[in-house]
Amino acid sequence: MISPLHKFLAPDAIAIIGASADPTKRGYQAMNGLINDGYSGAIYPVNPKTDTILGIKTYPDVASIPDTADLALICTPAGSVPDLLDACGAKGVKGAVILASGFGEAGAAGKQLEAEVLAASERSGVRVVGPNTSGMFNLHKKVNLLALGNVIPGDIGIISQSGNMLLALALEAENNGHIGFSTYVGPGNQTDVGFADYLRYLGEEQNTRVATFYVEGFKDGRKFLDVASETARAKPVVVYKSGSTRAGQKAASSHTGSLAGSYRMTVDLLRQAGVSVVEKSDEILPVAEGLGLLQKASGKRVAILADGGGQATIASDRLSEAGLRLAKISDETRTALRAILFPQASLVNPIDVAGSSDANLPLLAECMEILARDPQVDMVFLVGMFGGYALRFASELADDEGKTAELIAGLARRTPKPLIVYSLYAPVKPSPLAILRRAGIPVYDSIEHAVQVMAALGERGHYLEQSAATDYPAPVQTVPAMQELFRTAQRQRRDLFEFEAKQLLKTYGVAIPPQRVVRSDTEIEDAVGEFGEQPLVMKVVSKDILHKSDAGGVRLNLSGAQALENARKEILENCKRYKADAEIEGVLVSPMARKGIEVIIGVSQDPIFGPVMMFGLGGIFVEILKDVAFRAIPFSRQDARSMIDQIKARKILEGARGEAAVDKEALIDLLLKVSTLVQAHPEISELDLNPVIAYADGYAVVDARVIVKPADI
Amino acid sequence: MISPLHKFLAPDAIAIIGASADPTKRGYQAMNGLINDGYSGAIYPVNPKTDTILGIKTYPDVASIPDTADLALICTPAGSVPDLLDACGAKGVKGAVILASGFGEAGAAGKQLEAEVLAASERSGVRVVGPNTSGMFNLHKKVNLLALGNVIPGDIGIISQSGNMLLALALEAENNGHIGFSTYVGPGNQTDVGFADYLRYLGEEQNTRVATFYVEGFKDGRKFLDVASETARAKPVVVYKSGSTRAGQKAASSHTGSLAGSYRMTVDLLRQAGVSVVEKSDEILPVAEGLGLLQKASGKRVAILADGGGQATIASDRLSEAGLRLAKISDETRTALRAILFPQASLVNPIDVAGSSDANLPLLAECMEILARDPQVDMVFLVGMFGGYALRFASELADDEGKTAELIAGLARRTPKPLIVYSLYAPVKPSPLAILRRAGIPVYDSIEHAVQVMAALGERGHYLEQSAATDYPAPVQTVPAMQELFRTAQRQRRDLFEFEAKQLLKTYGVAIPPQRVVRSDTEIEDAVGEFGEQPLVMKVVSKDILHKSDAGGVRLNLSGAQALENARKEILENCKRYKADAEIEGVLVSPMARKGIEVIIGVSQDPIFGPVMMFGLGGIFVEILKDVAFRAIPFSRQDARSMIDQIKARKILEGARGEAAVDKEALIDLLLKVSTLVQAHPEISELDLNPVIAYADGYAVVDARVIVKPADI
Repeated sequence: MISPLHKFLAPDAIAIIGASADPTKRGYQAMNGLINDGYSGAIYPVNPKTDTILGIKTYPDVASIPDTADLALICTPAGSVPDLLDACGAKGVKGAVILASGFGEAGAAGKQLEAEVLAASERSGVRVVGPNTSGMFNLHKKVNLLALGNVIPGDIGIISQSGNMLLALALEAENNGHIGFSTYVGPGNQTDVGFADYLRYLGEEQNTRVATFYVEGFKDGRKFLDVASETARAKPVVVYKSGSTRAGQKAASSHTGSLAGSYRMTVDLLRQAGVSVVEKSDEILPVAEGLGLLQKASGKRVAILADGGGQATIASDRLSEAGLRLAKISDETRTALRAILFPQASLVNPIDVAGSSDANLPLLAECMEILARDPQVDMVFLVGMFGGYALRFASELADDEGKTAELIAGLARRTPKPLIVYSLYAPVKPSPLAILRRAGIPVYDSIEHAVQVMAALGERGHYLEQSAATDYPAPVQTVPAMQELFRTAQRQRRDLFEFEAKQLLKTYGVAIPPQRVVRSDTEIEDAVGEFGEQPLVMKVVSKDILHKSDAGGVRLNLSGAQALENARKEILENCKRYKADAEIEGVLVSPMARKGIEVIIGVSQDPIFGPVMMFGLGGIFVEILKDVAFRAIPFSRQDARSMIDQIKARKILEGARGEAAVDKEALIDLLLKVSTLVQAHPEISELDLNPVIAYADGYAVVDARVIVKPADI
Repeated sequence: MISPLHKFLAPDAIAIIGASADPTKRGYQAMNGLINDGYSGAIYPVNPKTDTILGIKTYPDVASIPDTADLALICTPAGSVPDLLDACGAKGVKGAVILASGFGEAGAAGKQLEAEVLAASERSGVRVVGPNTSGMFNLHKKVNLLALGNVIPGDIGIISQSGNMLLALALEAENNGHIGFSTYVGPGNQTDVGFADYLRYLGEEQNTRVATFYVEGFKDGRKFLDVASETARAKPVVVYKSGSTRAGQKAASSHTGSLAGSYRMTVDLLRQAGVSVVEKSDEILPVAEGLGLLQKASGKRVAILADGGGQATIASDRLSEAGLRLAKISDETRTALRAILFPQASLVNPIDVAGSSDANLPLLAECMEILARDPQVDMVFLVGMFGGYALRFASELADDEGKTAELIAGLARRTPKPLIVYSLYAPVKPSPLAILRRAGIPVYDSIEHAVQVMAALGERGHYLEQSAATDYPAPVQTVPAMQELFRTAQRQRRDLFEFEAKQLLKTYGVAIPPQRVVRSDTEIEDAVGEFGEQPLVMKVVSKDILHKSDAGGVRLNLSGAQALENARKEILENCKRYKADAEIEGVLVSPMARKGIEVIIGVSQDPIFGPVMMFGLGGIFVEILKDVAFRAIPFSRQDARSMIDQIKARKILEGARGEAAVDKEALIDLLLKVSTLVQAHPEISELDLNPVIAYADGYAVVDARVIVKPADI
């Protein structure tokens, strides 16, 4: 699919509507920027009050423009926009960047105006960037409608819901000196074009090697996930999502009016779609830079080459914390290193050359070469003083240091393995480090940032490897009898009864304990006949009683007809007392489940992301420790497994404290079956299996709840 | 107590032993550095082979120096050091910095030589920095024995176990342009002078406003804690401790040979002593700078003043994550802000001026003034473009921006509340930001770093407030009968029996369930007589059986004489089977504890930090989630409370899931009693109460284990 955005985000002719001769106005600054940058396309200033601006002929209105323009920059007030879009459409303009605010973010009248903008966009065929946007640039095309100084063309595409955030990244890039951008767009209110559309565009845009997003809130999160999981196969997608706390969510919503959603859920879903999620704002640019340059690593095993102690130690700590591993150096590599390094060098990763390179700098390049050759090494991380030898020790070292930089640069061209550098001297930008950077080797002044980059490279390599062989469950056929179950519930304006929910699960292949609904004392005999003397549980069945235990509607460990009869009587009495007008269908009788490990599976329809499954351990793990994982439905077998493995308390599932490990394959199977069932029945608004008891062999679904969408929705 | 280090770390005369005319040698570089920096004291180069170096008369040996020197820099090889120390002592030298390596870190011969160095130091009275040190500087005294370029005098004192780490911080400071240092020392092998001594020195040293440490491993951690808790009352102490992971610990130990110890425990103990622990290496300098400038905040309530959306949102997220709070702005403040800001400004913290200041920059200073006056605000955080208005919008704004910076600087001089700035423009160092920094307002280019600084300020304020009213339990008198208990156990080469451990606890005021040791069937009658029909637990008492349950040595829920007799028989049989030669003392009978919430209290003698208590919730919380807190013994009532509150699962103690909250005061009391008991009985090597069951009223110590130190230690 080719994004329609290409037509106007790389425009060959631009109309500036509301062009101005006043240097403080955007309608002047944008024109001035285009001219100064040497934009080669046509510029059509529209201004009825003057004949030329900056030496370019102006037009009184859009209709008077002699040719068409791909893009219109609309600098006029909000109220003028709908008519202008119509005029643009008549002229064949493909897209408009609308700077004005005063739309949906500004009360009821603004909302109305924004609806008119959308209608005009649809009517005219002119796609809308914004309104309420900071603007856009495409530096390779020399289109910089923000007139942002000191930004250089490069490979980072960026979409930021905050103009100041773009500015911060641009200043950071300016200070770095090597980092450049391809396209920037401020999505503004996303009235027409939204995050997912921009992502598709950046995914296709040839100058962009990494698509980077600052997001306060998604409007259509599901669409973004869909496009991301396609795009991420081709190039890295980096997202910083603000609102990780309640305080941040409130701030974001007052800033953009965005619905924040659950942060941890959003992060899980983005990662599922292959997105490299960055959780600190000062890591956005380093990670984007590193992914842009290096794209991915084949694995998470890092060899550290250091010329001193402290930083190698810090790097080791950070690597482990970030889920990376210190590579186990092969014997062959060790032998090769021993042959060239001083005897006191440490040959256990982190490799410390211990002074070997002080008088022989090219040795560092040689060591990197040896490490990069090791099949047990996925990335090589040079840590220490490189770049500063001549500055620190003797200017005579400058030649050697430059030569060494060239050798490392040469290695970078030959090896597919990422080379990453942390240098103490990065803040002072010595020339050897510039040589490395020009060869595509990122150089960091923070070990922490460098490690985040390596973590992102490793994660991305893992994602690509996995997504090459993703195993999605086949969708299931909707079973008519189950559809009927939902229709009945909808007619009766109730949710599914527990026994119906379990019936539903069973129909789609989930193992369900035997169950029997008892509506009279005579039916108790049948239950005894079926279940014999094993201990049973009895629960009330009533659409009017949601919290069965609270109502006294549950009895455990029942055995024999008498116990069942008594229990049924008690339950009915309790429930009447609890809610006098409760309609009681009967009681559900089932064998007690064996002891095991409680887990919870929940499905909900998220307003931003659609159907999402949650998995966690039961009780305090969910309620207090919030130790849960989320995946968007549908998900693959690999996703199901990673959802289980992501839980902090996973060791409990893996057999801690002398217990046997639970049957993880059975749990994975259960997660997949529930996900396909949910797809087959869009009538499901929520589904909760709480608890499921996991065993060394299989599992038992002890309670099941299915909330049904009303029929009229 | 006045540190003896003043005498030589601020020397008035320096001997350079091994002075050299070769510019690549330290014995030249140090001299050259002293001369170039304009050191005003005497320099005595010692070199038998030449008459002058760099125009200064040399002496053939130490004895020939015409006067005394406070400090000797020893640049000669390891083997020469012991004799040189003796010579220095004879000359009245107070301290020596020994650069050579080849000591304890280099095998048996080196260890022997290091012991000789220590002996010579003690004999001669010459204190030793190193050996195997990168050196030291005292920039206010113009003594820079590292000849490190581009460092300016300032208020950060730094002790770093890695020379490269110092270099990295110095380069970072150089790039910042404002950050300066007072004293640096590389402690090297800490043969004589160690971390705690340096801390005491920096605490007393007048030019140092913050004492900063990079530590790979403590030798005498307890001494450091003791000095820290004194020093931290007067000035901030910042520690970065490496080895947070197993990989880092291995790397550190191969680097410095240091014993790493448990990282989480080290962090807890340092914080208990008032240390500001930094956990990321790129936060060391920002936090040291901020604490040096601002010292502390009166609380954790931050007002954010922003001129745009994105960064205010990010700041809100980071603040919450770091345990800070967005201040609730008072109505008065809101009214004052409303009077001067545009109507669209957001007056709910984060305050967003929404363009109000674009044409009126001094308004930002006015807003900060208003916020700083609010009694509900502890710190004011300016976030956004300030410093870059003239650069971004129009150079005509430069005057106004400079004036605004002066206004903010004036406010900083008047208000005791910390002002902190994050600016998008910090990387390009515009002059308004330099004005702020010169006024003592730290300016950051990372929101994350700024927030870490505020967190450290808030934590330190909290520590100071608390330590002003610390409530330590009175030490208890050692009870002779209990001493006898230990002597008996030591004689019998065993640990305390459970009933003895509980007896010990009871003696020192811990509530202990009634218990009875039963050694024969007849004694069972007595137990029945005492406990009646309530359900009882029976456990084997044997010095040879550590894991009572594994041995089948525990029976629960016993009631009546017959059940007790049977249980006793079974237990004795099981234990014989488990360990045929086990000496069995009898069985311990006690009432079953009510259900409640299991917690664990453990005390151990840490080889680095001495007696340390651990607290956590029982079972998986300790074993799998490692959700535990540590405090050095003795600790205060406040420490005991914070130890409980630090647990991630503390909500379980506070009454989650409909349960009542446990009696936290009783738990605090228990922790304090155990701590005083441990102090009264240094014979205790380990003590474990596992589990203690906490109730809404009180607690029950269900099991107690006391490991006894052998008598001969």
